[in-house]
Amino acid sequence: MKAGPRAGRLETPHGAVPTPAFMPVGTQGTVKGLTPRDLTASGTRILLANTYHLMLRPGSGLIRERGGLHRFMAWSGPILTDSGGYQVLSFRDHAKLREEGVEFRSLLDCTLEFLTPERSMEVQADLGSDIAVTLDHAVTLPLDLPAQREAGERTLRWTERSLRHARGLETPSGMKQLLFGIVQGGGDPELRREMAERTACMACDGFAIGGLSVGETKEETWALARATAEALPADLPRYLMGMGTPLDLLDGIACGIDLFDCVLPTRNARNGMAFTSEGPVNIRNAEHARSDRPLDPSCGCEACATFTRAYLRHLHLAQEILAHRMLTLHNVTFYQTLMAAARRAIERGDLPGYAREFSERYLKRGGTSPAPA
Amino acid sequence: MKAGPRAGRLETPHGAVPTPAFMPVGTQGTVKGLTPRDLTASGTRILLANTYHLMLRPGSGLIRERGGLHRFMAWSGPILTDSGGYQVLSFRDHAKLREEGVEFRSLLDCTLEFLTPERSMEVQADLGSDIAVTLDHAVTLPLDLPAQREAGERTLRWTERSLRHARGLETPSGMKQLLFGIVQGGGDPELRREMAERTACMACDGFAIGGLSVGETKEETWALARATAEALPADLPRYLMGMGTPLDLLDGIACGIDLFDCVLPTRNARNGMAFTSEGPVNIRNAEHARSDRPLDPSCGCEACATFTRAYLRHLHLAQEILAHRMLTLHNVTFYQTLMAAARRAIERGDLPGYAREFSERYLKRGGTSPAPA
Repeated sequence: MKAGPRAGRLETPHGAVPTPAFMPVGTQGTVKGLTPRDLTASGTRILLANTYHLMLRPGSGLIRERGGLHRFMAWSGPILTDSGGYQVLSFRDHAKLREEGVEFRSLLDCTLEFLTPERSMEVQADLGSDIAVTLDHAVTLPLDLPAQREAGERTLRWTERSLRHARGLETPSGMKQLLFGIVQGGGDPELRREMAERTACMACDGFAIGGLSVGETKEETWALARATAEALPADLPRYLMGMGTPLDLLDGIACGIDLFDCVLPTRNARNGMAFTSEGPVNIRNAEHARSDRPLDPSCGCEACATFTRAYLRHLHLAQEILAHRMLTLHNVTFYQTLMAAARRAIERGDLPGYAREFSERYLKRGGTSPAPA
Repeated sequence: MKAGPRAGRLETPHGAVPTPAFMPVGTQGTVKGLTPRDLTASGTRILLANTYHLMLRPGSGLIRERGGLHRFMAWSGPILTDSGGYQVLSFRDHAKLREEGVEFRSLLDCTLEFLTPERSMEVQADLGSDIAVTLDHAVTLPLDLPAQREAGERTLRWTERSLRHARGLETPSGMKQLLFGIVQGGGDPELRREMAERTACMACDGFAIGGLSVGETKEETWALARATAEALPADLPRYLMGMGTPLDLLDGIACGIDLFDCVLPTRNARNGMAFTSEGPVNIRNAEHARSDRPLDPSCGCEACATFTRAYLRHLHLAQEILAHRMLTLHNVTFYQTLMAAARRAIERGDLPGYAREFSERYLKRGGTSPAPA
């Protein structure tokens, strides 16, 4: 079945989220520098939090005792937690992969930890997220096809173990978590499709698409995303993990993706990079030293409503945390504004027109490379 | 004349400030992590900004071009600027004192700079602060009496030069700055009194008391502050520079001080130290790891209304900037709440009673040493 852009509603224990939706990343149980009030003002309706970081500090048991992550971080909207697999495997020198799970050393204190599908679901149940994601084995490219298949097959086995174990778990509040299975399968569209079809046979509430943008070209990424999305049930949400730039979001939405997360808006903010409707702005640049304009004249966030580029540049160069806070608030607002506009464009049946118009404005100032500084 | 506690109003070009008042320190044109909206919510009515830092970065000319510091930092309330003398002389190895002024090397790029009474007033006029303070020669104790007198005499000469030069200067908005003379005189009460009386003869709109808490005992500090305050005109504001703890503020108010500034609430916040009505709280302490209480149950700031100690401790240990932002907001709110309560106590004629009650509560948990960590 052909997958195309769609506007929908994701129902969660903490309310409904209009989709497509973007989730800012709250790695350590906080979106860098922002309060829940700021996040709401930015248009954020759902957050991502990292299982890996929170299990190590402050520990999922402590968060369960506090009533779960929502109460701990004072966020009353939905939260999705990842499985921790990506972080664990990305520190390769510190991780040992076995069929049972991944043995790794904590980057905080070097103690030995063991992340299994079962443990990941237990931690996520402790956190009490609205959406838990099953443990996967992600790979980076280039890699030979048998090894890609092996990782895909292991992901299927781990998905099954995750789902089975999750059935016996309870969240701190007693609410029922949604469970998202995760599709891997490397860089081969056929293997991807097969993995998606086999994952789709499992009893999941939605599906995460992992392991993209790990060495392949942009064209390959979207071919793989499309092949995966088409093989997944049309009536369940699809979540593309860890991507991307504003243009990536529009491309992903066109492929039928409903949920996104990415560190770009928050991480780039700390490096002085702002996303604007006229393209990326590097606030360090001398051209802004005497600019009395806001970051983005078409944005209504507190940063744009209050401060000039000259002042934000001064704050950034003086290493003042208000610079990070304001650029983060702006970038998250920019992403949410983009998502809302895309949703409206889908509803009126003209996503391609909106995407074209946005890209033209965005690329005029060199928006091709909004990569992290 | 005997000086005692007093409640008043300081009229400035950017509005009236009820006194006694506390000025949070916005060293680089920002109170660490807080927006103007946060500052207003904290009860802050007037800020201090540092001439030294702003003249080096981004430069006072750039700020003048932007319309002055109020517009640059988007703060519409009053601002007091110091003279820069304290900072310049505190980096002794980098400063050379001459009668004409102080030669120093910029800590940013090592270029040679020269701060004279005239230059200080020019920079402060560029910034367009509501209150400018004349350049002084501060000393630290112990120091022999002739050297203390020499610094005091130089301060008198510099005050006169500052005032004379300021008459010909214009602020970016054309508004008229208030000019505060500054009283030095080291650790000798007689010398202090003489310096205060001689400064009082100059045409100032108020008086700063500098060079206290630089090596003498607390008892000596307050004897000196009282001697100085008593020798200053009763109808003009008195500003005690760079002090202090919550108990210092109450002692200062009792001596007839109207204006205070101190980095403690903002600096201690970054070190995890919160001022509360039950005494100082070090959020790093393990006792807070599982605490579901707010920082201060009697505080209404966003930090106390939103987050638990357990969460704030986690943020602090994870080095998340939201920890700094929230503790700063709380500490500034705590200081402003204390000042408002002291003002009400003066109005009903019972500052001593209020101070006693506050101290008892505050000292119960070891509030004797809220020194910077």
